[in-house]
Formats: sequence, C-alpha cells, structure tokens
Amino acid sequence: MPIATPLTRLLEIKHPVLLAPMDIIAGSRLVTSVSRAGGFGVLGGGYGEKAWLEQETAKLAELRAPFGIGFITWSLAKRPELLDIALAAKPSAIMLSFGDPAPFASRIRSSGARLICQVQDETMARQALDAGADILIAQGTEAGGHGASRTTIDLVPAIVDLAAGGVPVVAAGGIADGRGLAAMMMLGASGVLLGTRFYASQEADGAEEAKRRICAANSGATVRSIIFDLSRNNVWPAPFTGRCLVNDHARRWIGREVELMQNVAAVSAEYAAAKISGDFDIAAVIAGEAVGLIHDIPPAAEIVERIAAEAEQLLAGRRNSVASLA
Amino acid sequence: MPIATPLTRLLEIKHPVLLAPMDIIAGSRLVTSVSRAGGFGVLGGGYGEKAWLEQETAKLAELRAPFGIGFITWSLAKRPELLDIALAAKPSAIMLSFGDPAPFASRIRSSGARLICQVQDETMARQALDAGADILIAQGTEAGGHGASRTTIDLVPAIVDLAAGGVPVVAAGGIADGRGLAAMMMLGASGVLLGTRFYASQEADGAEEAKRRICAANSGATVRSIIFDLSRNNVWPAPFTGRCLVNDHARRWIGREVELMQNVAAVSAEYAAAKISGDFDIAAVIAGEAVGLIHDIPPAAEIVERIAAEAEQLLAGRRNSVASLA
Repeated sequence: MPIATPLTRLLEIKHPVLLAPMDIIAGSRLVTSVSRAGGFGVLGGGYGEKAWLEQETAKLAELRAPFGIGFITWSLAKRPELLDIALAAKPSAIMLSFGDPAPFASRIRSSGARLICQVQDETMARQALDAGADILIAQGTEAGGHGASRTTIDLVPAIVDLAAGGVPVVAAGGIADGRGLAAMMMLGASGVLLGTRFYASQEADGAEEAKRRICAANSGATVRSIIFDLSRNNVWPAPFTGRCLVNDHARRWIGREVELMQNVAAVSAEYAAAKISGDFDIAAVIAGEAVGLIHDIPPAAEIVERIAAEAEQLLAGRRNSVASLA
Repeated sequence: MPIATPLTRLLEIKHPVLLAPMDIIAGSRLVTSVSRAGGFGVLGGGYGEKAWLEQETAKLAELRAPFGIGFITWSLAKRPELLDIALAAKPSAIMLSFGDPAPFASRIRSSGARLICQVQDETMARQALDAGADILIAQGTEAGGHGASRTTIDLVPAIVDLAAGGVPVVAAGGIADGRGLAAMMMLGASGVLLGTRFYASQEADGAEEAKRRICAANSGATVRSIIFDLSRNNVWPAPFTGRCLVNDHARRWIGREVELMQNVAAVSAEYAAAKISGDFDIAAVIAGEAVGLIHDIPPAAEIVERIAAEAEQLLAGRRNSVASLA
C-alpha cells in the first residue's frame, strides 16, 4: 500500500518522493517521468533563463499530473518576471531555495500554487514559515550542489520540531533509496527530495559521462567547497557552498582558494572550456553524498517505484516482526 | 515489546542502545546504570590510565549485567598492558576506536570477549572485519569528541552494505532519541551508540556546568576542529578531529590554527587552567550535533527506557497505519 503522509495529501501525489529542481538537469522530460510515476517532479528553473523556462513549461502543458517549478531565490529576485512565466504553467507548487521567499510568497499563493521553501537551518525555516510556506524542505549538507553545513540527521528533527506539525517537512541530502525514505519518516519527515539519484536517470538532461561518474563514485567521493563557483565566476552569498564529485580540479584547488582567485582569469577560461568539451576532470559533476548508493541509470519512473516499494516494505515489515528486526 | 536485533542477541541485552565510552565521563557509575536498564554500558577507558581503570573496573565486579570497556586504539598501543586489566574485569566486549585493532584482536577474542570496532570509513571497516570484529560501530561526523568527516546518513548504509549481514552494525553520531534509533534501524543498523545524550545524565562523571551547557545548546552549536587538541598539546593522528560546543575559545582560534601553534605555550597554559577551574568559555565541552535534542539531565536508566519506548512505538506504529504515516 502506498505511503500516505500530509505531504502526499497536500500535493495529491501517490509517493512521497520529490525531484530536486536541479538546474539544467531537471528539465521537462525528467519532471514528466517523475510526476507520472506518482512522485512530484520539480522543474529546475535554477538561476532563471527565460527562453529555457518558456520552452520547458510549454512541454509540461500535457503532463496531467502534479508538478512544481523551482528557483534559486536570490537569482529570481533579479528577474522576478520569470515567476509569471512559471505560474502561467499552472504548477501545483513553486519551490524556492537560497534566499528570502517573502517577496514572492503572496504572488505564488494567490495563484493557487503551494509555496515550498528549502531551508538549511532554523533561522531560514522561521523566515519561510513567516512568509507562509506550505512545505519545508530540510536540506542537509550531504546534498549535491548548493547547500550549507548542517547534516541531514541533525537538521531534519530540528526542523520537524520547529514546524511542530504545522507544515509537512521533507528531508533532503544523502538519500537515494527506500532505506533513506523510511529512515527520514522515522525522524518525522513526510517525504524526501532527491537530486543525485535522479541525475543518474535516463531522462535527466545531463551528460552521459557525468551520469557514468556518479554511478562509479563510492561513498566519500564528494566534497563541499567554493572552488567550483569561484572557477566559473559565480560567487554565491554565504553560507552556501557547493557539493560535487572530487575530481582533478578539486584536488588541485581546494585549500588554495586565494591562489585560485589570483589566477581566476586563466582558471575560469580553462574551466569554461572544460564544461563545453565535457571534461569532467576539470568541470564539476554536481552530486551529493548519496553517490555511493547509486550504481545504475534507470528510467526515472523505476527509481520512484523502487524507493517507494523498498520503504513500504521496511515500514510494513515492522507489522509482523517488531521483535525480530535486522 | 523490546526491539530485538542481531546486536541485542549477540550482547544479550534488552535494548539496542549502547553507551559511548566517553573518556572520564563514562565511569563505572554510568556504565552500571545503562547496563542495568537493559542497554550496554561501555566504560571510557580512553587514553588509558592504570589507577583509574583498576578502580572503575573493580566497581563493575558487582554489576551482574553485560558491559564493555572502550579504548582509544592508538593510545592503547603505547600501554598494551592495560588490556589485561580490562580483560580481567570480564567484560562482554572490548571496544576499540581510532587505530588498527589487529594487534589486540586475538587477546580479546581468546578471552571470550567480543571485539567491537568503531570505524569512520570503509577502509577502517575492512581493517576491522579482517581483524575479526564481532560488531562494527559506524560513527558519523555528527558525533561528539573525536571522529572524522563522513556523515551518519552517508556512512551507516555504506558500512551496512559492506558488512553484508556478516556482523551487526551500530550507528553513532547525531542520535539522542527514539526517532534516531528507529531511523537508523531503517538504514539497516542493529542499534545505536550514544555519547552526548548520556553525558547529560545524572550518573555521568562530568562537570555540572558542562551538562548544563549541553542542555542549553541548540542544534548547530557544535564544531568539529583540531583547536581543542592543539590547545591541550594532544595532537591526534589524521583524519581524526574533535567535535565540541562552540565557545569563546573556538570562536577565537578556529581558522587561526597556525597562530595558535605559534603561541601554543601560552594558549595551552591558559587552556589547562580553564580546565581546572571549570571555565567552559575556554575549556571544551565535548559534545555532538545531537545537543539540540537534549534538554534535561535525567538518570541514565530513564534515557535508555525513553529511547527504547519511543523507537518501539514508532516502529510498531507502522503495524496499523502504514497508510497514514505522519
């Protein structure tokens, strides 16, 4: 029997499994597959590019399943008109991460969409609740891409306690299988949000070589740092840093950030060339600590179904054998 | 009904809740209380001090419940004779952390005691299994005191998969309540090991002011660094660092480690004086990320019972309501 939670009821979805709105990677193809499988696809609006957003939202017109659209909040603040394009696509929710959601909250909620806010600590959670968030994502440092320093097992109960049953809390960071979903539900979460696991799916708009590297990476093969942002002249506000696979570029520059900045013109030219040529010894593969749990590149629907089935089995398995748990 | 796991069967304990062998803090009083409550007390042998070890093990002679004794492996290697004192106390298990357990494994196992090895990554886990470990503790970076960088939610499934059902895996780091125990069981762990939660107990041999600070601390109020070890002239082998509450000393020196070492004589004198006078603005309160979940200083038995009861309820709650989880 599917796992029903306040989150699944609120979003009217079958499985409490959300797709992280990975910039560029989570396009309409991946959103469509996740949502049709009963999860909740969230389009990776990212920094906000008008042509891409119009093109991808147009493709979602035929989806006929709940979906969301995600933005980097501090970047959306520079191009607030993009929110109109997003809302015109009639998403069930807008997900905002990394910045103050307040300036956008009333437009989102008056459109009928839910407001999902991703937070990395209690202060951000309070800010999101004050803005009227309908759902909080508690993102641990284990997550791929941008995030902060608190760990998932530390942050999730803290945000659950802070929300105090008022809004559903979704756990993000380090989760890639049904064990993770079941564990997060024990901590009080109503669901999970996964990035890296869906990156390694057939429908993700990422390079095949990047997906292959995610499958090959062991646990412990990622690092959270600022060098990839420095290397692409894309400096984020504190406290946000980015987690990626450790590669030659990371080994070369981590701990030498000042020297990198002294040579930033040359480094960023090299980095930009590597991105174009798909040289992932230099360009980053954005990925979280869950890489060790990821070994294949299936259709996204299979990922949703696997995670839901494994968690259902773990949770239901307790029915008959609380006295003989493994 | 108590939660039975391969761990509880192997150690012949009622609840899958282990006391971390906190140096100085986990004395015979705390061990006795945890073990008599149905958990598994582990005496904090720490660096190894002969008089203390003889005194505390003597007090355990009357315990009549399973218990263990823990050592810092690299320190025990300098005083291997202390293992004889420990084994003479007839513990059910010896727990070794931070170093190669192989030189001690045969003496431990031939005495009839189990060998528990705490590990921080897969390489250490393989080394422990090769040495014949009966139980692995997978310690995430969230843990108080010494540890490494991998997070609990990342490390536990990785070590569970590596152990492949061969030996029970216990989760440590960031856990202080029944939610954490239930969550770790979903990840495949057979139990949990808790330090900070038991530090804030009546029987812990720590300063009252330290316990009070643990209760007052919010989530996010700890930091993993090397400055406390530097400040007491106690340099550990890589990759181990120590997690403590953030205090004035931490705010002053983190990021200025080279300068600290340039002034180490003065800093260490100041630090030693602060330890003696109980000035925890300078001296470290060793504590993990679970501080945010800790708000009281109950008897240790009550901690064991609370955690077991909450986890039992969470796990058993699934029996009747898999379709309506929070």
